[in-house]
Amino acid sequence: RCFHFCKLPGRVMGIRLLRFTSVVIIVLLLVAGALTALLPTIKDDKLPNSRRESKTQSQSALDSFTLIMQTFNRTDLLLKLLNHYQAIPHLHKIIVVWNNIGEKTPEEMWNSLGPHPVPVVFKVQTVNRMRNRLQNFPDLETKAVLMMDDDTLVSAHDLAFAFSVWQQFPEHIVGFVPRKHISTPSGVYSYGSFELQNPGFGNGDQYSMVLIGAAFFHRGYLEDFQRQPEAVYAVIDETQNCDDIAMNFLVAKHTGKPSGVFVKPVDIRNLEKDTNSGYSGMWHRAEHLLQRSYCVNKLVNIYDGMPLKYSNIMISQFGFPNYANHKNKM
Amino acid sequence: RCFHFCKLPGRVMGIRLLRFTSVVIIVLLLVAGALTALLPTIKDDKLPNSRRESKTQSQSALDSFTLIMQTFNRTDLLLKLLNHYQAIPHLHKIIVVWNNIGEKTPEEMWNSLGPHPVPVVFKVQTVNRMRNRLQNFPDLETKAVLMMDDDTLVSAHDLAFAFSVWQQFPEHIVGFVPRKHISTPSGVYSYGSFELQNPGFGNGDQYSMVLIGAAFFHRGYLEDFQRQPEAVYAVIDETQNCDDIAMNFLVAKHTGKPSGVFVKPVDIRNLEKDTNSGYSGMWHRAEHLLQRSYCVNKLVNIYDGMPLKYSNIMISQFGFPNYANHKNKM
Repeated sequence: RCFHFCKLPGRVMGIRLLRFTSVVIIVLLLVAGALTALLPTIKDDKLPNSRRESKTQSQSALDSFTLIMQTFNRTDLLLKLLNHYQAIPHLHKIIVVWNNIGEKTPEEMWNSLGPHPVPVVFKVQTVNRMRNRLQNFPDLETKAVLMMDDDTLVSAHDLAFAFSVWQQFPEHIVGFVPRKHISTPSGVYSYGSFELQNPGFGNGDQYSMVLIGAAFFHRGYLEDFQRQPEAVYAVIDETQNCDDIAMNFLVAKHTGKPSGVFVKPVDIRNLEKDTNSGYSGMWHRAEHLLQRSYCVNKLVNIYDGMPLKYSNIMISQFGFPNYANHKNKM
Repeated sequence: RCFHFCKLPGRVMGIRLLRFTSVVIIVLLLVAGALTALLPTIKDDKLPNSRRESKTQSQSALDSFTLIMQTFNRTDLLLKLLNHYQAIPHLHKIIVVWNNIGEKTPEEMWNSLGPHPVPVVFKVQTVNRMRNRLQNFPDLETKAVLMMDDDTLVSAHDLAFAFSVWQQFPEHIVGFVPRKHISTPSGVYSYGSFELQNPGFGNGDQYSMVLIGAAFFHRGYLEDFQRQPEAVYAVIDETQNCDDIAMNFLVAKHTGKPSGVFVKPVDIRNLEKDTNSGYSGMWHRAEHLLQRSYCVNKLVNIYDGMPLKYSNIMISQFGFPNYANHKNKM
């Protein structure tokens, strides 16, 4: 028995110990409470009913692309093409740039005919401008953009192959429609296709642009386009044309190389004859090609030089569609 | 008159002036003599008669290539091909790897039929080995090597285009003959061409090698080849085959990408039927293809893995030979 020794310190220690343990317990409870408050709430993870998240949503931003399609006065073609393009492999999302000012989008119809393989976003525009499609849309989640005109149908095979080519040349415009510019002795440039005399670099022809109306390119170029001089927008708005030529100037300047890589399409179709709208596309205007030559020269002024470079590389898919398409009679 | 003043300093100055000017003159003469001794002698600039330096010698090492052609028992074909290849644009020099052991080279005849557009060097070998052509020849002055079999004729147009493609893909084997390997469920690999089932990556076919018997590649790979494990040389020497498969393994391992870029030839010909020697080339041996499958598996063991990668990129020349060969029926 340690009456004196034990009792007095014991009592003192007892009280102190009691206080100490109480404090510890209270602190632990507060900490635990704080931790539980920080846990994520489970109800936020529930999928909303209105937009079904298909497995394409989880596709890596590197392995999929976003289709951007601007449309004016050809909704029948648009809907036909949407049914085709919605099922392309590696497609992440479709952005429709709605240039039909004041007119309702077909979103209701689209939703009523769901479900769809990928989400479609209708971006209603306030002014009917050619360069509306070159905005840096916040809806873009992928690195790659596929831009298509609203009257152009390219087969899924061609698109799958061209996307794989873009992944190997991500700083280029990889597409199906090559064009070129020609220098003349006067110093004035002209714009054209293969019927225009070749630039004179050895055998064969050359191209210096790949049109963005049927092409893959990096979304970073849309960001860059927002920083172009006002004069570039003025040229595009004045002609309602040449946004694609401007993009090729931008890319060529940025890379110091030919802006585009041409992939020869197996199956590419222009559906403009199929429209009921009677509207047949800008390139039928009498002044269309002259405008494009005009744009080339204006852009050379703005850029203080000609950044476009020539290429003669034509890419096709090995062994497709003919498994022996590379055979030679050695 | 300044008789006293003038005469004394004058005389002193006169003598001093005289001495001074004499010294200056002598020094100047000595300097002049030294300078003339340093002038280059004109006679060293005279072109030697025996080897006329054509303007191709001054071609930049980046803008030209060296042809390496190994030859065995087909000197008639060799000479026919030399007449063709000596005139290819951007050719810097030809190196003939002479595998006809103990036999005189045709150097005398070559010289007697000069002048020639480029120099040819005959490298006499001591042993008839397939891998003789993969030495790091000190005669090489260009970055690019064009390696051709001694029975293969490729048109100048094809070579000029493929060289320009190599300049855009300098770390790859850029050539005209694609081949592939196939994985099988047993884990054993097989070697073949397009008649072999495709590797199963979507549409069409794939290739994983470009044969070096008709291809451009960087001379650095010859340097790298000297540092291969002995086991690699053993496989090549044992089969007298597969040096090209070994090079594809080397390049694929080095780049982590497909080793080759296939350029579809317009005009490639095998001349082996044209030889008077009766010798028809290694690939006619019964065991040739089986050997190559064997080599693939041996190399996988040596490399402890399969470094070859598949590609389905097929490159053609835009607008050549048909200026509208990229036209589509849009």
